[in-house]
Order: sequence, then structure tokens, then C-alpha cells
Amino acid sequence: MSEQPQVGLIGLGTMGAALSLNIAEKGHFLAVYNRTGSVTDTFVQTAGDLAPRLTPTKTLENFVAAIKAPRVIILMVPAGPVVDDHIDALKPLLGPDDLIIDAGNANFYDTERRAKRAQNEKFGFIGIGVSGGESGARHGPSIMVGGTEADWARVAPMLEAISAKYDGTPCASLMGPGGAGHFVKMVHNGIEYADMQMIAEVYSLMRDGMAYKAPQVADVFENWNKGRLASYLIEISAKVARAEDPISGNAMLDVILDKAGQKGTGRWTAIEAQQLAVPVPVIEAAVAARNLSARLDTRQRGAEYFGDAQKALEGEGIAAKTLEKALIAGKILCYAQGFEMLAAAATHFGWDLPMPAIARVWREGCIIRSDMLNDMATALTNNPGDNLIFAEPFSGLLKDCEAALRDTVIAATKAGIAVPALAAGLSWFDSIRTRRTSANMIQAQRDYFGAHGFERVDGKNEPHGPWAGHED
Amino acid sequence: MSEQPQVGLIGLGTMGAALSLNIAEKGHFLAVYNRTGSVTDTFVQTAGDLAPRLTPTKTLENFVAAIKAPRVIILMVPAGPVVDDHIDALKPLLGPDDLIIDAGNANFYDTERRAKRAQNEKFGFIGIGVSGGESGARHGPSIMVGGTEADWARVAPMLEAISAKYDGTPCASLMGPGGAGHFVKMVHNGIEYADMQMIAEVYSLMRDGMAYKAPQVADVFENWNKGRLASYLIEISAKVARAEDPISGNAMLDVILDKAGQKGTGRWTAIEAQQLAVPVPVIEAAVAARNLSARLDTRQRGAEYFGDAQKALEGEGIAAKTLEKALIAGKILCYAQGFEMLAAAATHFGWDLPMPAIARVWREGCIIRSDMLNDMATALTNNPGDNLIFAEPFSGLLKDCEAALRDTVIAATKAGIAVPALAAGLSWFDSIRTRRTSANMIQAQRDYFGAHGFERVDGKNEPHGPWAGHED
Repeated sequence: MSEQPQVGLIGLGTMGAALSLNIAEKGHFLAVYNRTGSVTDTFVQTAGDLAPRLTPTKTLENFVAAIKAPRVIILMVPAGPVVDDHIDALKPLLGPDDLIIDAGNANFYDTERRAKRAQNEKFGFIGIGVSGGESGARHGPSIMVGGTEADWARVAPMLEAISAKYDGTPCASLMGPGGAGHFVKMVHNGIEYADMQMIAEVYSLMRDGMAYKAPQVADVFENWNKGRLASYLIEISAKVARAEDPISGNAMLDVILDKAGQKGTGRWTAIEAQQLAVPVPVIEAAVAARNLSARLDTRQRGAEYFGDAQKALEGEGIAAKTLEKALIAGKILCYAQGFEMLAAAATHFGWDLPMPAIARVWREGCIIRSDMLNDMATALTNNPGDNLIFAEPFSGLLKDCEAALRDTVIAATKAGIAVPALAAGLSWFDSIRTRRTSANMIQAQRDYFGAHGFERVDGKNEPHGPWAGHED
Repeated sequence: MSEQPQVGLIGLGTMGAALSLNIAEKGHFLAVYNRTGSVTDTFVQTAGDLAPRLTPTKTLENFVAAIKAPRVIILMVPAGPVVDDHIDALKPLLGPDDLIIDAGNANFYDTERRAKRAQNEKFGFIGIGVSGGESGARHGPSIMVGGTEADWARVAPMLEAISAKYDGTPCASLMGPGGAGHFVKMVHNGIEYADMQMIAEVYSLMRDGMAYKAPQVADVFENWNKGRLASYLIEISAKVARAEDPISGNAMLDVILDKAGQKGTGRWTAIEAQQLAVPVPVIEAAVAARNLSARLDTRQRGAEYFGDAQKALEGEGIAAKTLEKALIAGKILCYAQGFEMLAAAATHFGWDLPMPAIARVWREGCIIRSDMLNDMATALTNNPGDNLIFAEPFSGLLKDCEAALRDTVIAATKAGIAVPALAAGLSWFDSIRTRRTSANMIQAQRDYFGAHGFERVDGKNEPHGPWAGHED
């Protein structure tokens, strides 16, 4: 039994194909289109039981004509100008109340711009951040939506149906207008960088500081995955540490070159955090670590010049329990920074970002999914507007885990094993609980050379020091 | 004896007034103009011996008419749209071969844009970064020039004459075309933030970790100013630590609120470093520290919740000699990052940035001026294209000072005294001499969830691990 589709999807790459099958599986009929027509044919031919719900089309005109108005058209094409090209090409073909959804990895500024421009068009536009990769797109991603309430209401049933579920609750939510969805997705990716980097740092403490073999590392991660750190990233870290290289028979981890790539969304997060004047040092450290890892030649040379940095940890090293607590603390600090950045963005862009809902949609489907995010959703609900480090259970956890983080950073620093993200988290924590910082020195210097003035601790109105020469 | 000016200056604020007097003092006659005419009058009336060389004007038309063609017109107005407004207003009044110099604190992207646009005009445009504040502008600033060789040749005699001198060498140089001068000035300011922050960190170790009174801190800084750290910032740090508050009679430093301001150029540096994928963690830490210092309420609350971070250092604390060496190491690492960023910018923007000349113009006149910059100029000359940490005397200094930096960071971390910039410098150093990082874990995770692939240590062509589920 065939129905005329009300939904269409453009772009049958890995993600688009997976998302199409997910949508079809949830009972929707949909038209599909890909620039290269043979891709469309192959896709539908290999769709098995779901093929009858898919209408392959070979031109954009036929694609739009195949969809019943009012249409929902999902773009899953490379971020950037290709999205604009498609919007331009679709424009003359669309009718009133048609709706374009950009489900790609757009920069949120582009989504803002496109949403604004669409206000003058007869069709609607929403931008959604989709996390979970191919498997998530196929079986249930986390979906962060930017758009109007009305457009969200229209597509919510479909997006909730295809999304991941946490205890039955769909991981799809309206984050705010325009670029809000893609902004939240960007911060997700920044946190993902940081989460991965901190795991890599404790791994290096085990490997370089305590001579753990990869399977021993796998044991530790498997164990942690049963506790507070239970999460997708810890789970797969155990798996990759367990894996053997089919070619050499060695541990897979030991065969992989230590040269990390990136697609740039971590960098975007760091840049936007700077724009918002919100420190996210753990994310910055993670981005820096990837950039530094890529500079193999310099590192080899540095090791020759200054001696290799990796040395055994003192004594018996760091107990797995201590490392676990250090990672718990680091993770809380990283998320606290991420949510602070989201709060600042909400103020800056005039968005009413739903903090608990953000934590909820991240609980399942996306890369940073974890049980801890469920507690964060609760904490953010119970402590609206508050920093996560002051909300239970995280304030208590931090108190419990602070010493472990400190001991870990100290031991690593002694051994010359770089743990930039964990160290940055601890520095941030020590700063945020410093009643009197040394910024009075900076203010004195600034007033001395630039007559920038300062406030006084006694509130008196004498904003300059007793020095003459002012420079800048 | 009066001549018709060939130079004019618009904008008689603190910096513009000082620069005008400097130019007049070097023998130039110049027309001056300020939007508010009374400011112009007062300025010339109080110019003393130099007044005869200054021609006050009350309209832009009269201003331009007062200058003999081909004219050199210096803008010293607030950065941003005001500069564009002045260029637009001047455009119809200018003749062929007239030259506009933007001497304000422009973002280098704006300077790039203005320089490009000026290519279609009859007049020329150059952008110069001027560092040294009021006193520098009056008696000799550091000047970083962006423009064509021809335009530079035309104004070099004047700019060199008004610039600071180091051993007789003018601190004014052509950095490259367009925005190159303002870019170098931006990195200067980023380094300035970092330099100041590291000084503030060792100050906090003395104040909070060892209960030094401000005059004792002044003693230490004065002593350091005779050694490797000799620099303007150490000199004024000693002075502000020595100063007494005329109101309370207490140490001035203790009266100043620990809430640092900023004008944003440190942030620009951090953002551009991210764009260039060059880690500048010491600068990032310095920007973050200013942002965190401004959040007094959160810090008070953090101190109540988690206990104040400042505790006495263990034992007898850290010897002044050790702190000095830690600061030397931190400083070298910070400059190494800054010069690396400049090298990356040169590649990215197609500029032929003259690294040794950058170090040379920073030796005098600007806020970060120091003797160490003279050694850096030599090192960058002798080791073209190389990272500063591999160039003598800095590689040797780093070897000598590394242990002190490490001991300092460890002691501070134990005491809960945040030293984010010093710690970030050390992490960077340990990373850059790590033969094998833990980025293999990150690559494994990325391949697991996103099929991103990796390189192998054995160079074999099997870019994926033996895992099935791929997500993103």
C-alpha cells in the first residue's frame, strides 16, 4: 500500500541514507533525491522492506512534485554553500507552508542567517543538530532543534519518533529560534572533544606512567563503565583498548598513529566561548591537544632536545580508583563550563535555552550520552540558572573527587606526562573558589601603563594609583 | 618660521595628542583636527614650544586644505566604524598620492578590508599598530606597519623618527601588506596579557603561598629586573608593589579590587590562534583568568562551598630564585607560542612576516619591551623558521629552568593556588616533547563512532579498526 509522501530528503550520503531509513521505518513515506542519480537507485534497491515507502526521484522538480503539500524537506548535504545552493534551487518550487529542515552540521551563524532570510519567504526553515553518527541516524539520534514553536509543533511527532529514547523520553527538543539548535550541537561537540581528551589523558597515565598493556586499560574502562562514569565514550574506549589488530596481532591501540584529526566543531566552540567571554579551558585544552598531536615532527624533535616527556609515575603510580575520581571531577568541571557557555549564549542571543532539556536530549543517541547527563538534567531542573558545580549531586561529587583530581595532576606533572585538560579543569576550579585572586596586580599594571583605572576594595572613589607615567 | 604642513592628524584624544606632539617635536609641521573644535584649540594652546608647528583646523575641508599635497593623514580615532566614516568623509577631499594612516587599535580584518578598498582609490592606505600608550606615543612608541613597500618607504623616515629606539635602532618596521601591522600588534597584546598573568601568578604564590607583604614582593621584582627577566612589566610590577595608597596608607596593591578589565585584544588573539589551529594556551589561560576574576560573586560562593583555594605552600614555600626561573621558562614558552602563531599567519595570509624585525620593534617602546626580546631577535635571525624553544639561548634556558617551572606548578597545585598560565605553558612544553601522545586513543574513538579512519604506525593501508558500529 503506497501513500503520497509528505516528507522528502535530499542527500543520500551515509547520514542521509540512515536518516531516510529511520524515517521510513517509523511509518513515513518519503521522497528521496541525490545529486548523483545512481546513488538514489542503489539506496532504494537495497532498502529491503522499507523500499516501498521510498520514492526515488532524479530531478529536484520531480522530487518536490512527488511530495504532497504542505511539504517537509530535509537537507542532509555538506554544510556551507551547498545548503544555500539547495535552498535557492528549491525556492521557486515550494508552496506556502512548505518547510525546509537543514539537518547537516551547519555553523549556527549560517542557520541564523538562513532562518532570518526565510522569514521573507513563503516557506519555513528550521535547523537541527543531529548527533549519533550513522548508527544514531539509523536507529535514534539526539536531535537539537532551532526554529519557531509552530514549525517545531509540526515536525515534533516525526522527529521525536525517529530520535533516541532515554527511559522512553525522546531525545529531541526545541532549543530556541534560528541557530539555537546548531549552537547546542556545537557545544555538544566541544564537550565531546573534552570528554575524549580527558579519557585519553588517563589512558596515557596508565600506558606511560604505569606500563599498562592495552587489555589492562580495557579492564579499567570496563569497570568504570559500571559506575559513575558509565557512558558511551567509556564503553567504546574499553572496546578499542580490547581490540586486536588483524594485521599484526598487536593491540589495535598500539598500531594507531597518535595524530588526531578534527572536523573543526571543537574549534568553533572555543571561538564562540571567547566571543561570549566564558572560559571553557577544558575544551580549549582538548582542541590544543589535537593540534599538538598532529605535529609529529616537532614532537620528535622536542623529545630529542629536551628528553621524552613520558616518565614512569612515582611509586606505584595512581590507583585506578583515584584516576576514576579524577575523571569524574574533570567531567563535571567540563560540563559546568559547557552549560555556563550555553547560559551566556542564551543571554547574548536572546534565546530561552532550556538547560534541563539540553541535558535530557544528550542522555541518549549522541556521542556524549551518559547516565551522568540524567543527573545533570535533574540538577539543572532543581537549580535553575545555577552553575552545575553548586548543584547536587555534583557539588558533593566534586568535594569527594577534588583530591583525586589534584593528586592525579600533581603526579602527572611530576612525571612530565601532559594532562592539559585535567590540569585546566583543576585550575578553573581553583580559580572559581578563590576569594581574592591576583587580578589586583593586573589592574595595577593596567592603571600604571594605560590609566585604565580600577575599583577599590573599600569602594572609595579614587580609581587611580599614585603613579605618574601612563602608557599602553 | 612656519611651513605648510605635509602631515595631518585627526583625533586629539590622549593618544592622538601625544603622537602629534611627538611628530612636531621631530621637526614636522602638522595640521590637527578634532571633531570637537574646543579640544583642538586647547591642545594647541597648551602645546608650548611646539605650538608654532601645529595648525589647528575646525572642519575636515580646512584640515585637508591646510596640508600640502601629497598629504599624509594620520587617523587616531576609535577603532571600528568611526574609521570608515572618516575615510568616507576624506575621500572626496583627497588628491592623488595622498596617504591615510590608521594608527588606531583596528582589528586587522578591518585593516585588510580598508587596504583592499583603497587599491581602487587614488589615495593610499596603511594601518599601523602603535604600542606604548600615552607616554610611548609622546616619546617613542613601538610601531608595526602594514602597507605597501612604496608607502612604507614614504613614511619610514617620519615613523622611525617618532618611534622608540633600542640601542639607536628605531622600533618601527614594515610587517607586511594590509592588516599585517595590526595583526602583529594584536599578537603583541595577547603576549602582553600572558606576560602580565604569569607575573600575577608568581605574585599570588608570594602573597598567598608565603604571606609576603607587598614591599617584599617589590623587593623580589626589583631584584629580578636586574637579571634575565629585566623588562618594563617587571619594573612596573615592582613599582606598583612598592606604592602606598594615599587614602589608607596601606599597600596600594592590597586596596585594588581583584577584578581585571580588558579591551578585548587578548581575546582576538585567542580567536585568531584557534582559526589558525595554533595552540596558544598561555594566552588563552590569561584571557580566561581575566574573565574569571571579573566574576566576584561566583568566586565568593565557590570559596564558601568548596573552601577558599589559597593555602600556604608546603614547607618554606618556593625560593625566589626558583620562581624567577619558572617565570623565565613560562615567558619563553609564551613567546614561542606567539611567534609560532605569527609564522602560521604568515603562511595563511601569504605575508612574509619578518620575525626578527618583530622581535626588534618589541624591544623598546611597547608594553612587553624587554632585553630578552633582543636575544629573541638574534635567535630568530640565526634560526630562521625555527621554533624559539629550539634556538639558543632559549633551548638552554628552558633546559635550565624547566625543573623550576615544574616545581612551581606542582607546589601551587598542591596548595590550591591557581597558576593557569604557568601550568598551561608547562603542559604545552610536555606535549611538544612527547614522542608518542595519547592521541591514538582519540583516533580510535573517532574511527569507532564516526569511521573517520586513522594512520597506522607501520604505515600499512588499513585505516579502520576491527569494530563494527560506527556513529558520529
